[in-house]
Amino acid sequence: MESSHHHHKRNQIFLGTFIHSVKLGELQYMHDTAVCVDKHGKIVAIEPQCDLSNVTEALCQKLSWDAHDLAITITKEGQFFFPGFIDTHIHAPQYPNVGIFGKSTLLDWLNKYTFPMEASLESLPKARRVYTSCVRRTLAHGTTTAAYYATIHVATTNLLADLCHAMGQRAFVGRVCMDSADVNPAYYRDESADESLSRTRASIAHIRNIDPSYALICPILTPRFAPSCTRDAMAQLGALRCSSGLPVQTHISENAAELALVKAMFPECGSYADVYDKYSLLGARTVLGHAIHLTDYEINLISERGAGVAHCPCSNSALTSGEAPVRRLLDAGVGVGLGTDVSGGYSASVLEAVRSAALVSNHRAMPMGKWAETPAEERERAKLSVEEVLHLATRGGAGVLGIADRVGGFEVGMEWDAQLVGLGLVDECPDECDMRDHGNVDVFGWEAWDERVAKWVFNGDDRNVKKVWVRGRLVHERK
Amino acid sequence: MESSHHHHKRNQIFLGTFIHSVKLGELQYMHDTAVCVDKHGKIVAIEPQCDLSNVTEALCQKLSWDAHDLAITITKEGQFFFPGFIDTHIHAPQYPNVGIFGKSTLLDWLNKYTFPMEASLESLPKARRVYTSCVRRTLAHGTTTAAYYATIHVATTNLLADLCHAMGQRAFVGRVCMDSADVNPAYYRDESADESLSRTRASIAHIRNIDPSYALICPILTPRFAPSCTRDAMAQLGALRCSSGLPVQTHISENAAELALVKAMFPECGSYADVYDKYSLLGARTVLGHAIHLTDYEINLISERGAGVAHCPCSNSALTSGEAPVRRLLDAGVGVGLGTDVSGGYSASVLEAVRSAALVSNHRAMPMGKWAETPAEERERAKLSVEEVLHLATRGGAGVLGIADRVGGFEVGMEWDAQLVGLGLVDECPDECDMRDHGNVDVFGWEAWDERVAKWVFNGDDRNVKKVWVRGRLVHERK
Repeated sequence: MESSHHHHKRNQIFLGTFIHSVKLGELQYMHDTAVCVDKHGKIVAIEPQCDLSNVTEALCQKLSWDAHDLAITITKEGQFFFPGFIDTHIHAPQYPNVGIFGKSTLLDWLNKYTFPMEASLESLPKARRVYTSCVRRTLAHGTTTAAYYATIHVATTNLLADLCHAMGQRAFVGRVCMDSADVNPAYYRDESADESLSRTRASIAHIRNIDPSYALICPILTPRFAPSCTRDAMAQLGALRCSSGLPVQTHISENAAELALVKAMFPECGSYADVYDKYSLLGARTVLGHAIHLTDYEINLISERGAGVAHCPCSNSALTSGEAPVRRLLDAGVGVGLGTDVSGGYSASVLEAVRSAALVSNHRAMPMGKWAETPAEERERAKLSVEEVLHLATRGGAGVLGIADRVGGFEVGMEWDAQLVGLGLVDECPDECDMRDHGNVDVFGWEAWDERVAKWVFNGDDRNVKKVWVRGRLVHERK
Repeated sequence: MESSHHHHKRNQIFLGTFIHSVKLGELQYMHDTAVCVDKHGKIVAIEPQCDLSNVTEALCQKLSWDAHDLAITITKEGQFFFPGFIDTHIHAPQYPNVGIFGKSTLLDWLNKYTFPMEASLESLPKARRVYTSCVRRTLAHGTTTAAYYATIHVATTNLLADLCHAMGQRAFVGRVCMDSADVNPAYYRDESADESLSRTRASIAHIRNIDPSYALICPILTPRFAPSCTRDAMAQLGALRCSSGLPVQTHISENAAELALVKAMFPECGSYADVYDKYSLLGARTVLGHAIHLTDYEINLISERGAGVAHCPCSNSALTSGEAPVRRLLDAGVGVGLGTDVSGGYSASVLEAVRSAALVSNHRAMPMGKWAETPAEERERAKLSVEEVLHLATRGGAGVLGIADRVGGFEVGMEWDAQLVGLGLVDECPDECDMRDHGNVDVFGWEAWDERVAKWVFNGDDRNVKKVWVRGRLVHERK
């Protein structure tokens, strides 16, 4: 399928300003730089501090590339390349419900809004409409990798995988496993643990068929959350994880009522994290959504197992779930990425999650919070800087999903998953300028680069995402 | 100046769907409705539930209007009229700093980012560039009324008033009074209380000159906040308030360090609110920004005096100031509007403040907060619904500014300050549709009207604001 979009793949050179996170809290600004991407979408050379006017020829010579069969993209004034965003937690079938949650919290929200919508996505025409909108929209927001929860339905889960493949979005696609008759409604659940597993295998087989090496689309084992699965299903999924090495995604410790439910349903387990650990579902490439109310014991267990967390601040605020202890997780060595958690989260934009992660971390630092008696310095440490939240949205997410060697930054050997970001320049003659297409970021010209990035984080939107590439392929362009 | 834009004012009829708040928590949806606005921008008739195809003629007959000299605006599918937003607290000179605040809190933020920027706005060319951007941007977000803090400079404060007048935005424009040598930097303060007052009078005189009846632009007395003013200046401002009846705006109880400062500087006053009360600055049409850490005594005092609050949730989260007790204020009978508080607030959009007000109210309801021991029901009451936050952004703000009889809703006798909101309809054939100009609200077609409004609140932006009118004049149009 992909080849139909790539009748003739070319080598590419990207020139100008590149910004990426090199480590938590540190952005690197590379100006006058050339990044060379080969026909396979891999970064093969990075030339910093070069003379952009004549570097192309030298690079072609060095790389033995045909200078006449080359695509060149240059940043304009106010533009920069940034790694594509990684959404570590998004429910594609809930996309039509973004913004619709009222005053509900997790468990009533599931029954009122979520299960009915997901159940309706058994319909192929409806699923095509919803999933196409969702993938197109997230690409437009600069999401180059998404870890999707689909529904229990094999056919439409496969359709989601097909659409991501066709539209060029790197994706982890999970058929949702939920076979418990206790929590799931009769109209929307797997009939048995065996059925849950066989449907999951069918979805994996489909993805292996369209993308045998999982270069772009990868299956992900998706027990919805512990209360929605029988012990049998979790045990079988754990065994499948061990034999296949596939990643896992699920939810953990989002909401107080959910915690009570888990405690009541799994009295033999000492904690919520222990439930997943008991069934071999906790390990490297396990993505745990939310992780708000964890105990120190659980944080240490998650860290020891090498599992990661999808921090979903928009969702946590919307559903009044709580403020996740991101600094504590990071301090304990737990990998953290960001998730939009559509539609518990009200926005499909990772940039909105970036913004929200910074603001919610400030709420954790407020003296009115549970930390009122905590020394101010320690509270202050809870705050996440612009540089830190951008790290979570790129390298952090890549680490959690086990693809940190391939995406998340600009390094030789990594793949070209990137967005071209353009900020609006306030015209010197404001009466004549037309701001309509530039979005809400106004650059007056005196701002330092870190200030421009802060402006983008707090006022940017999809209008600032001019182009998006995945594995070197242009997958979105704003005209 | 205004007349140059109105060579020929016409009567207008608006047809279609109208949505507005009728009281806190209740939106009214009026479909197939006609609203008649006369040449002066006043609503003279509202015809609900009518046959839009032939109502125009009957209305013209009833109103003795010339049917051939009439402007008609009809909502299209997915569109509705909504009252213009009222921003009760915005610092126009800080507009270039939106998004730039790092990890600072109020007092270091003032010295690091704010005072230097404001001081530089003495320059007329710079002020013209900044203020034009700010007014155009806020109009594009649907802000039909703004209560502006300018700077200490008379000439550029007057320029801000001129620009609002010319561009048609209803505005309260306040020259900032700050004459204390204790808190304000030497490079940016009024030299004395007398100078503070004479400069303020000069700014009032200018506005009276361009708009004698304050129909569009009104001066507002603006002591920055208690610590930045001498007792002499506050006393003189209080006397001016009593003699002139002009509104007042200032800050109160935003930040813990600020509270300590006020206590140390005004030991003779029992509380922060008492400081303003002592100097006759607390009364009807006094707008108090923030009001986060108030005691019950202060809330009652503010309520008794009839003063109102500008709730600025984006700013309060950004500067880690705290979570304002909006429900407690409302319960005590205090009027509450919303403020963007640019640039403590990172966005010039009132819709962003609407969204944030709902989310921050959820944070107040979280059991991890100071209310952990408070019964769940009481915590739950802290949550503000979509309907409630939209009320604050329209009627609430109008009440706080003392113009609730003129704007904030659609009623006969009120002025036509309105926005035409358009939501994006997901095409039945998504592969062919182009979503670029519709913004991020995707309407699939099955959503009820309250769900559409929720989608707008949580994913809307200036792209959904198709047209904006103030006093009947079209002041913004998105093409």
